[in-house]
Amino acid sequence: MEILQEVARLLPKIRGVEPLIHHITNFVTINDCANITLAIGGSPIMAYDETEVEEVVSMSSSLVLNIGTLSLDMVRTMILAGKKANELNIPVILDPVGVGATRLRSKAIEDILSNVKITVIKGNMSEIKIVSGLEVEIRGVDSIADNKESGKTAKELASKLGCIVAITGKQDVLSDGNKVFYVNNGHEMLSKVTGTGCMTSSLIASYCGVTSDYLTAALGGVVSMGIAGEIAFNSLKDNEGLGSFKVNLFDNIYNLNPDIIMKAGEISVQ
Amino acid sequence: MEILQEVARLLPKIRGVEPLIHHITNFVTINDCANITLAIGGSPIMAYDETEVEEVVSMSSSLVLNIGTLSLDMVRTMILAGKKANELNIPVILDPVGVGATRLRSKAIEDILSNVKITVIKGNMSEIKIVSGLEVEIRGVDSIADNKESGKTAKELASKLGCIVAITGKQDVLSDGNKVFYVNNGHEMLSKVTGTGCMTSSLIASYCGVTSDYLTAALGGVVSMGIAGEIAFNSLKDNEGLGSFKVNLFDNIYNLNPDIIMKAGEISVQ
Amino acid sequence: MEILQEVARLLPKIRGVEPLIHHITNFVTINDCANITLAIGGSPIMAYDETEVEEVVSMSSSLVLNIGTLSLDMVRTMILAGKKANELNIPVILDPVGVGATRLRSKAIEDILSNVKITVIKGNMSEIKIVSGLEVEIRGVDSIADNKESGKTAKELASKLGCIVAITGKQDVLSDGNKVFYVNNGHEMLSKVTGTGCMTSSLIASYCGVTSDYLTAALGGVVSMGIAGEIAFNSLKDNEGLGSFKVNLFDNIYNLNPDIIMKAGEISVQ
Repeated sequence: MEILQEVARLLPKIRGVEPLIHHITNFVTINDCANITLAIGGSPIMAYDETEVEEVVSMSSSLVLNIGTLSLDMVRTMILAGKKANELNIPVILDPVGVGATRLRSKAIEDILSNVKITVIKGNMSEIKIVSGLEVEIRGVDSIADNKESGKTAKELASKLGCIVAITGKQDVLSDGNKVFYVNNGHEMLSKVTGTGCMTSSLIASYCGVTSDYLTAALGGVVSMGIAGEIAFNSLKDNEGLGSFKVNLFDNIYNLNPDIIMKAGEISVQ
Repeated sequence: MEILQEVARLLPKIRGVEPLIHHITNFVTINDCANITLAIGGSPIMAYDETEVEEVVSMSSSLVLNIGTLSLDMVRTMILAGKKANELNIPVILDPVGVGATRLRSKAIEDILSNVKITVIKGNMSEIKIVSGLEVEIRGVDSIADNKESGKTAKELASKLGCIVAITGKQDVLSDGNKVFYVNNGHEMLSKVTGTGCMTSSLIASYCGVTSDYLTAALGGVVSMGIAGEIAFNSLKDNEGLGSFKVNLFDNIYNLNPDIIMKAGEISVQ
Repeated sequence: MEILQEVARLLPKIRGVEPLIHHITNFVTINDCANITLAIGGSPIMAYDETEVEEVVSMSSSLVLNIGTLSLDMVRTMILAGKKANELNIPVILDPVGVGATRLRSKAIEDILSNVKITVIKGNMSEIKIVSGLEVEIRGVDSIADNKESGKTAKELASKLGCIVAITGKQDVLSDGNKVFYVNNGHEMLSKVTGTGCMTSSLIASYCGVTSDYLTAALGGVVSMGIAGEIAFNSLKDNEGLGSFKVNLFDNIYNLNPDIIMKAGEISVQ
């Protein structure tokens, strides 16, 4: 498929350019986000003090905003950094972790969306539904039976916000408001390790750092994590589990190459 | 032993229920605590802003308070979350890391204990002694020779606070103020990796999330970490060390099952 | 070489003494810094609240100040802790991560240097140049062709600040203001994992905790990381990458011994 080829072409570009990826992110998976950015070929910088975020984003190729462990201060610096990114045409990747769970998180996303133009928003089905103003059933929202509904949700939110929407789940669904893409890579085990969602945002940001075709970039991040997750699982030996899977995941993002993407990537369009 | 059987019966329940475990914890081992919670079958959520902790704890099955990297703000949110947990009968697991080392930490534990009813308190011998108001010799307090004294200390503090007390060390000692239990699992190597104590609290919290028999739950957390530590050490190959041991630890909590618990668990009562 | 022998002699001393190493450090690599300190034989303590840092540093053997994720509050507590360390003759290791990138970081280093007497300052070539008040070209500053210039820079800054300067890069360069030492250990892969620089500071601090010969201590930290990096890379199997390399790194610091240091260490003096 043509879009897979474009993803495959972007990967070596990341390794050549080593785009600087500014993260304002949570304290749970901050180390993993830094390492996955390095593994794909980018260069991570984590900075969140309000007196320095504008300078940091100015020298960066992308900005990741992740509300995993939020504080009121952090919302303010996210908006500050996001506005500067908008001013300089630097792509902004938003990961609305746990939006809907608390008023703080919902208000934060509302404030960010009304002040910052987002380039790619990535979340699971519940998070994206809440951002879309839809009602959410608590369990089972990520089931494959929902893929038609996911496509509709992704497309509508993408249209509304004028950005790329990526819904991760058993089957990942992406839309630019026009077409809808489905990614059939990944493995259930990815949900058993904390931070694989956050890391997917870092990968998307790394791809966004070397192209202005943000749909392909978002697909690149999602398909890279999916493929690496599959190989990481298949490489597990007897008696290995979550710990080894996580190590394998970093190994396989590090060793990912265009051939593997072309062979293993499963993207369909609708 | 009957209590080991009860532990073994709880483990599949964690994997079925996937209890949400709210952590207000330190920034050193926060990622490890999230992953160990996932590995045992729970679902971690880390949140500490004072504007959201009450909402988060309200949807959780247990609350972990860990003072490993403390700030004044954090004490306030811990008390806020703890009071809400008490109101809703949600178990609270307290890990008084480094209490006694600084006035901030000692005052924090004093304030938490006078505002929040704790379900399980877990610490090493020095920490538990300080919480008990006893004098502490700086070195050697965890030695096996102390097991009689440990039993007395655990039992007295459990009586005084009306909670479960778990003292971790070469031999772990637990009491509900009535009986005293000794766990002979574990390996010295567990003390060579940061966060194994914090992770034990996460495991205890995961067990507490599926039973109201908190003594069994505390034993479950302690014995699970001990068994996984033993297997993790025994699986080390030549030239492997701290890094591989930590990976093995996550693998073995992930692969833990009732059979392994029944075969490897060593609990005695007194 | 004699100095290598001195390094080799210090390592068992760390394992005997288990020096307490107080870190005020960034949230990206804080877990790695704790584990590398344990792996070399030290005992890490991470504490940054202004109400407790003076007490914590008072019981420690070294203090690490790392500005990787800085806030204004943190600068204040770093100075507080640093002054107390000076008062008690406790060595202070400064890691000026990203100095020059933002005004906050440059001002922080200026403030720290004018308030705290530093024992060892460790950074890459750009960071050390900026601390020295020199101009910095953005790319290629770490190239081996620069080793003569590096030596001059290290020596001059060491003279000016009256401390040990360690410049890490393809070839590491250290000076006490008098002699210049070159370390030829290490592997490029060390730059592909976040935190190897921060961890080197933790290793230096661990060596500083058991000797007052801080030049040897700084060489010890740098050469230990270099050797472990080489072995970690050479131990990689097919299809392994960043994840496995990081695990190997911890394993090899944990398994480092005087024989390995004597056989693998490459230090030259000029």
